[in-house]
Amino acid sequence: MPLLEKIKFDDKGLIPVIAQDVKTNEILMFAWMNKEALELSLKNNQAVYYSRSRQKLWFKGEESGYNQTIKEFYLDCDRDVLLIKIEQKGGISCHTGRKSCFFQKIEKNKITITQNVLKKPTDIYG
Amino acid sequence: MPLLEKIKFDDKGLIPVIAQDVKTNEILMFAWMNKEALELSLKNNQAVYYSRSRQKLWFKGEESGYNQTIKEFYLDCDRDVLLIKIEQKGGISCHTGRKSCFFQKIEKNKITITQNVLKKPTDIYG
Repeated sequence: MPLLEKIKFDDKGLIPVIAQDVKTNEILMFAWMNKEALELSLKNNQAVYYSRSRQKLWFKGEESGYNQTIKEFYLDCDRDVLLIKIEQKGGISCHTGRKSCFFQKIEKNKITITQNVLKKPTDIYG
Repeated sequence: MPLLEKIKFDDKGLIPVIAQDVKTNEILMFAWMNKEALELSLKNNQAVYYSRSRQKLWFKGEESGYNQTIKEFYLDCDRDVLLIKIEQKGGISCHTGRKSCFFQKIEKNKITITQNVLKKPTDIYG
């Protein structure tokens, strides 16, 4: 059976994707891929996601320059979640200009910001 | 605004949850919570998920004994993905008896198993 037929996409044709720093294991991003995005990601080892809001392929870094080189691909036990271990160009994964998207910590029923903005979004996206 | 109103659940009332080992940063599991599961998880610092297949709350470890103590909670930039940093009791997160659910590596268009079974599922679930 071809590889892509072994992978389970959901009822919208998507699979959740966790992007993890290949060196530190820090979680950088969470996004989605459709079959085409996964095929391109596997082919070129550059992360391509599917943007649910824009309803089209999202070539990560196309606008920002912060592309992601994929070093390793993993599936979970049910083959319906993808984990990619990446090298994040420029050290910024998040559209807010932070290293990781997971910068809001919940403590004592409040949300605390735990990471600094490394570059202003207006300087990233112009 | 109360904390739970700041968190975005999807059109099915669910939020994706990444469970990461608090010490090693290894990703152990991916699952979902509904509002009730998140409230219980926040209250008791024990992971409670929502099982989409069984359509009910899933008190992690209830059957297997491998419960998860949550040490830290994070939200992503859009507040629609949750990351929990956990201590995994017994060192087994996956229903296959492995440490992590992400044991299938994609290499050269094939799937390779990268982790050993630590305990047989029949011994875990009886």
